Amino acid sequence: MVSTLRLLRPSLTGLRAVATPRRYVSSFGYAQAKALIYSDYGQPSDVLKLHAHSISPAYGSDIVVRFLAAPINPADINQIEGVYPPKPEMTIKLGTPTPVAVPGNEGLVEVVAVGADVESFRPGDRAIMKHAAFGTWRTHAVASDENLLKIPEQFRDLGVVSAATVSVNPCTAYRMLKDFVPLERGDWFVQNGGNSGVGRAAIQLSRLWGLKSISIVRNRPEIDELKQELEALGADLVVTERELADRAFRKETKRLTGGKGIKLGLNCVGGKATTEMIHHMAQGGQVVTYGAMAKQPVTLSASSLIFRDMHLHGFWVSRWSDANPEAKRQMVEEILGMIQRGELKDVPVEKTVWTSATKEDELKAAIAKSGQGFGGKKQVFVFEE
Amino acid sequence: MVSTLRLLRPSLTGLRAVATPRRYVSSFGYAQAKALIYSDYGQPSDVLKLHAHSISPAYGSDIVVRFLAAPINPADINQIEGVYPPKPEMTIKLGTPTPVAVPGNEGLVEVVAVGADVESFRPGDRAIMKHAAFGTWRTHAVASDENLLKIPEQFRDLGVVSAATVSVNPCTAYRMLKDFVPLERGDWFVQNGGNSGVGRAAIQLSRLWGLKSISIVRNRPEIDELKQELEALGADLVVTERELADRAFRKETKRLTGGKGIKLGLNCVGGKATTEMIHHMAQGGQVVTYGAMAKQPVTLSASSLIFRDMHLHGFWVSRWSDANPEAKRQMVEEILGMIQRGELKDVPVEKTVWTSATKEDELKAAIAKSGQGFGGKKQVFVFEE
Repeated sequence: MVSTLRLLRPSLTGLRAVATPRRYVSSFGYAQAKALIYSDYGQPSDVLKLHAHSISPAYGSDIVVRFLAAPINPADINQIEGVYPPKPEMTIKLGTPTPVAVPGNEGLVEVVAVGADVESFRPGDRAIMKHAAFGTWRTHAVASDENLLKIPEQFRDLGVVSAATVSVNPCTAYRMLKDFVPLERGDWFVQNGGNSGVGRAAIQLSRLWGLKSISIVRNRPEIDELKQELEALGADLVVTERELADRAFRKETKRLTGGKGIKLGLNCVGGKATTEMIHHMAQGGQVVTYGAMAKQPVTLSASSLIFRDMHLHGFWVSRWSDANPEAKRQMVEEILGMIQRGELKDVPVEKTVWTSATKEDELKAAIAKSGQGFGGKKQVFVFEE
Repeated sequence: MVSTLRLLRPSLTGLRAVATPRRYVSSFGYAQAKALIYSDYGQPSDVLKLHAHSISPAYGSDIVVRFLAAPINPADINQIEGVYPPKPEMTIKLGTPTPVAVPGNEGLVEVVAVGADVESFRPGDRAIMKHAAFGTWRTHAVASDENLLKIPEQFRDLGVVSAATVSVNPCTAYRMLKDFVPLERGDWFVQNGGNSGVGRAAIQLSRLWGLKSISIVRNRPEIDELKQELEALGADLVVTERELADRAFRKETKRLTGGKGIKLGLNCVGGKATTEMIHHMAQGGQVVTYGAMAKQPVTLSASSLIFRDMHLHGFWVSRWSDANPEAKRQMVEEILGMIQRGELKDVPVEKTVWTSATKEDELKAAIAKSGQGFGGKKQVFVFEE
């Protein structure tokens, strides 16, 4: 399979130079691809299988892509477990006897070949997924214009991990800081999961935008190192859940905010941690939930709603993106610019190289590592031929 | 004391005829008044005392009023228990050796005398409380322009109970139906506490405005009679909590709403009843909490927030009224018009006549009856000289 792909690459490079600018007919032939697949919900280690199949030549509006990088996000795992929408598309196009789904929602691809009707993409273009549930844990895929958000040429030199992980965590942090409370420079917000991908993005965006953050993290053996690390990213105050629960801390938030209080809270934990966070927020505060790490519901007293005028919302970047495609494109380009200028750093990642020779168990080992322990690194598949 | 007041009334009537239109100096003298008072939070039966005191002649911007009617709302009881804001004002103006508060938030008064600086009120005018926590469980009070919302002359013939109970329940229902979701004629909302004062007002307002309601009530011995009674008021569908919990009912709500779903939920219960109500609501629904009859917090899953895009808010009519005095005035007049035309009926009430001879125990007995059992009648003090 490696040889097949190696054989094809030079011909693609050649073709690209002579292609007409708007119309491109690929001579790319059949390619051998591999994909993780599943047909029933369950634990990834139980239900995922590595499946080899062939990719047909690009026909009509087909865009054949190869993956460059694809992260393992917590939501991907939950989706395989069947507890996180959207449901993946079940397909028999991968040559399986019964329909299967491909896991993975986020990823960076390079266009390998395009059908005769494709005008918007050319081989060599890079793109990320426009919507969730495309299935990104695979070496190749047949996509269409509808699936892909092109990465502008000026960001081609960005690391593949940065580009592959731009559309979920940084975009979630960006929208939650912008869309729920009109924050001005110097205004404070509070978030739990301060060390998460979204949490780190929120810290860095708030520094860029002149906002002030209180980031709540779980206590852990190397808490001082973590605090220093987040402060180096621009965190104004990092506190453990226990430090936050100290009643004296309520006065501290009042002092910090110059009496203005905290109007925005970002919640990815749930349960007691959320109730506690809300205690520190001001009258009229808006709490945005985007995760449930504690696997417990959000609970607050009627009096917080009635007398303290708290408001609860949820944010799901997939829904927002589907509803706002053009704003999504602009935001992604803005964030790519921040990454390029070194203003927004990736979360710490651990790469698993995925070649045509990689075994199923190696891939499953990376998936099993995802989300383990405190501040475990983000697992990312990086594809090599 | 009866004789004192009887003595004063004729002179007032006489004065009224000769008063200048903008300036009024009362010759009203000292009056004997009675007030329920408390100095410590606790059970009303333990902490309330009936206290006799004198009211001085109206001086400067004073407006001396006598109460005509004052309801016993659940929030009044909770306020005495110390669990419901706002805190009552503690005063020594009633001649007590230490500061005391007067319970009661809602009521209708008649102006008895006004000081020389008062331009906006004349004796004989009727008014309701402009803000919460004035203290309405008393025969007389010294108020100011700031405390009173005048009842226009055309509504003078309204029953004292209707006028005395207009500012909390009907206003709460009115704002919750107007301010959270832009409902069009034919749109549905759902509410629990369908038999409460707010619930009955919401049913009647929705009928007037062409909205459709699902009202949830607790199961009870005479459930069929209650359903008929609420349907007679204009309820479209009255269901018990148990009927609602039936999974088949979810399809029914979809059918009823023509697939549009329910975008607004009004919650005065909390706990499981609220979680269950939210299950029946559509994507993007807004849940407004205005009470906590079950004395349990509001709990919902992170996935309801994130994937179903539910939003939680609270509504407190006191805060809204303080922030929107002119809109409040207009709304009260609009609702008084509905009452006058027979479009909005009072909740079933039980009156306790309060005269100068009424004993403390009689008043406490009425308070003890408030909120008892299923659909217990609303208790109202009606003052007679």
